[in-house]
Amino acid sequence: MLNHFDESGRAHMVDVSGKDITTRTAVAEGTVTMLPETLALVQAGTAAKGDVLGTARLAAIMGAKRTADLIPLCHPLPLAKVAVDLDIDVALPGVRITVTVRTNARTGVEMEALTAVSVAGLTIYDMLKAVDRGMVIGQVRLRLKEGGKSGRIELE
Amino acid sequence: MLNHFDESGRAHMVDVSGKDITTRTAVAEGTVTMLPETLALVQAGTAAKGDVLGTARLAAIMGAKRTADLIPLCHPLPLAKVAVDLDIDVALPGVRITVTVRTNARTGVEMEALTAVSVAGLTIYDMLKAVDRGMVIGQVRLRLKEGGKSGRIELE
Amino acid sequence: MLNHFDESGRAHMVDVSGKDITTRTAVAEGTVTMLPETLALVQAGTAAKGDVLGTARLAAIMGAKRTADLIPLCHPLPLAKVAVDLDIDVALPGVRITVTVRTNARTGVEMEALTAVSVAGLTIYDMLKAVDRGMVIGQVRLRLKEGGKSGRIELE
Amino acid sequence: MLNHFDESGRAHMVDVSGKDITTRTAVAEGTVTMLPETLALVQAGTAAKGDVLGTARLAAIMGAKRTADLIPLCHPLPLAKVAVDLDIDVALPGVRITVTVRTNARTGVEMEALTAVSVAGLTIYDMLKAVDRGMVIGQVRLRLKEGGKSGRIELE
Amino acid sequence: MLNHFDESGRAHMVDVSGKDITTRTAVAEGTVTMLPETLALVQAGTAAKGDVLGTARLAAIMGAKRTADLIPLCHPLPLAKVAVDLDIDVALPGVRITVTVRTNARTGVEMEALTAVSVAGLTIYDMLKAVDRGMVIGQVRLRLKEGGKSGRIELE
Amino acid sequence: MLNHFDESGRAHMVDVSGKDITTRTAVAEGTVTMLPETLALVQAGTAAKGDVLGTARLAAIMGAKRTADLIPLCHPLPLAKVAVDLDIDVALPGVRITVTVRTNARTGVEMEALTAVSVAGLTIYDMLKAVDRGMVIGQVRLRLKEGGKSGRIELE
Repeated sequence: MLNHFDESGRAHMVDVSGKDITTRTAVAEGTVTMLPETLALVQAGTAAKGDVLGTARLAAIMGAKRTADLIPLCHPLPLAKVAVDLDIDVALPGVRITVTVRTNARTGVEMEALTAVSVAGLTIYDMLKAVDRGMVIGQVRLRLKEGGKSGRIELE
Repeated sequence: MLNHFDESGRAHMVDVSGKDITTRTAVAEGTVTMLPETLALVQAGTAAKGDVLGTARLAAIMGAKRTADLIPLCHPLPLAKVAVDLDIDVALPGVRITVTVRTNARTGVEMEALTAVSVAGLTIYDMLKAVDRGMVIGQVRLRLKEGGKSGRIELE
Repeated sequence: MLNHFDESGRAHMVDVSGKDITTRTAVAEGTVTMLPETLALVQAGTAAKGDVLGTARLAAIMGAKRTADLIPLCHPLPLAKVAVDLDIDVALPGVRITVTVRTNARTGVEMEALTAVSVAGLTIYDMLKAVDRGMVIGQVRLRLKEGGKSGRIELE
Repeated sequence: MLNHFDESGRAHMVDVSGKDITTRTAVAEGTVTMLPETLALVQAGTAAKGDVLGTARLAAIMGAKRTADLIPLCHPLPLAKVAVDLDIDVALPGVRITVTVRTNARTGVEMEALTAVSVAGLTIYDMLKAVDRGMVIGQVRLRLKEGGKSGRIELE
Repeated sequence: MLNHFDESGRAHMVDVSGKDITTRTAVAEGTVTMLPETLALVQAGTAAKGDVLGTARLAAIMGAKRTADLIPLCHPLPLAKVAVDLDIDVALPGVRITVTVRTNARTGVEMEALTAVSVAGLTIYDMLKAVDRGMVIGQVRLRLKEGGKSGRIELE
Repeated sequence: MLNHFDESGRAHMVDVSGKDITTRTAVAEGTVTMLPETLALVQAGTAAKGDVLGTARLAAIMGAKRTADLIPLCHPLPLAKVAVDLDIDVALPGVRITVTVRTNARTGVEMEALTAVSVAGLTIYDMLKAVDRGMVIGQVRLRLKEGGKSGRIELE
């Protein structure tokens, strides 16, 4: 049932050698909630100086490439695309993170997308923690999974 | 104000060479929310086979050590302690993650604690995603920071 | 003769671009020999608390993924499967390690299997060294190699 | 125009999932210029003791494998071949570095070849800096790119 | 004479355990030479979209942290500061890179500064190679070394 | 008893923040046993072309630096010295590996020395496997531990 364990309950990296190479896409999202005045700094920074979001975007892309180093049972995969959207949401208040990852491989890239979202959130926290230690990284979840045997799955 | 940028708004790794080496501790926390039946699998696994939480705990400890690789402006630090608590919360329903990191260094380990929480959450997601794609990693935040010039700070 | 050197004796990463992608498997093994009372702790731990073997298993899987980082002339490869068996052998006394690695690639995964065995052995040593510094990691060798031009080779 | 940015100027890892897997080769070169007496040490060392060039060659091969870790928007790729030529040039005076990298992939390996040249140069500097701090790494450039849609391109 | 080799000419990581921890600084520099029209893109990008220099700056800071992974005989060190200046030089034409690294350690950070310069140069190349394959990374050298037994050394 | 587990049997990275920084040394050893004709190749290579032992020595030094990445509960430490002896033993027949690691830190470097021995053995295997798949890496053990509370311990 939990395919990361064998029938005796021992962790293993699941055999995907018999699966087909197909184009697989995953989209994940998350938020960083902060004080309104912290968000104002992010907005100012993007325009003029201190580019918090640009830094987080690069960290997220590089983080996607480190996924198999971080998640014990993840297969190391070539990545064909990583795109990171960071949108300011005044109502939150905070930043909405959306990451799209694509590969041509025998298994999917959900974990790469989720890892990139987390690294984006952590980097935003790091850049702003001098002014707002109470920020919260949350709502990190999968939105879309496409390709492979299970086809396209959208989560609401 | 944002100390990760210089006066021209350019990112840099802040100079901490003049700060004292002191014992510094950080505690961070987060949650993974899941379906009740998924949580039942985690509980069963811990007892008998398929140790989701044991895997996440090790991933979190190793993840703490990768923090400076992931977060662009983080100082690389020796770590003196990493402890990970993973508690089942039937009311959530899901798993509550708490990570404590300690160092003797010139700067703090908030990012190490937060990174370890995130990697624990991602690993739990990975282990269980075959049965529950809708899990959410959330409420990742700093709880405590101790040592250094700012002393002990507890966040509610 | 030694294909990791060119005709002038200079190290290089051998050109495998003309080889076929095939499913390739390697099985390697090794042992950690210890005092009988140390082994008793491992056995107790697996049942109740302090899971030495579970920790070593995860370290081995993650170590397989780091092979090309560690072995200078190894090709970086996607891995399709890593499975780790850790068997208590009272006669040794100690733990027998067997690792199976599979890939779909242009070259084999013997080094990945041997590296995973070594990391399992090192991790077992690390977990138990507080009570038994005299443990010995030994008998690390290839057992089976399958796939590619040379076909199936079993070593006794 | 700059394909590492999307239409809004945000960095991304370009989607190569629709490109063909072909054999792609890149050749890059560079130099380390040093004092004649430093070069004499390198020459002596290669023959007898203190193999500066052998060390730099291995560092370059391993560096090629770390390219996607270092260059933010680089795709992680399997590498099929890395070869490093290090030639003593008395007229420079110094060492000429040439690296050839080959892959079967959806995108090229120019960055891998250039990274390997840089790491070779840095390692030569490190090995010799105790006797010559004024060495200069220079002329790092692409010489050849072959495979993929743009075919064979030689730069003079 | 070459302290990275022992008396038999075998490579080793030099023993620095008896040296004092002092504040040590290194400054290194380099250039990326390009076509005037490529440089115009960099200038436009910094102002409006496609921030080549911001990306290179972050890559350089992260690259400094990877130095001991890349350079075989380098000591792993904590870093206290990394600052990266990237200046447009129309006369070159191209970008001038200057990196300052500081540590409190038993050995210096020249290699960290030089590695960061190289990674900045490689990243600038990567971002712009779609429009200008003939760029050259050059003049990578040490400018200043301060702290430790040899005191302050400025290279012209 | 097993200090890598807390009182509930959960893995953690032990708190060493209260321990003193002292100079700590560890010596570990191991062997690679091979066919006499394989060993003859190693001997020839060292003299003339194809330097198996030089490659293994560098891999071992670099491997020591990766210890905390590989062994889950190992503390990341600065290393002050790594030296690798590789001696041909015709009686074995094979290569004897001895690694000495030194640090100024709050905990010892046994795992660094043992990891370096293992990586040396794996690299020797990799370099020679084209001619001798039956090689065995063995007798990997700690020989000496010095510094810290337990003082000097020599294992026979």
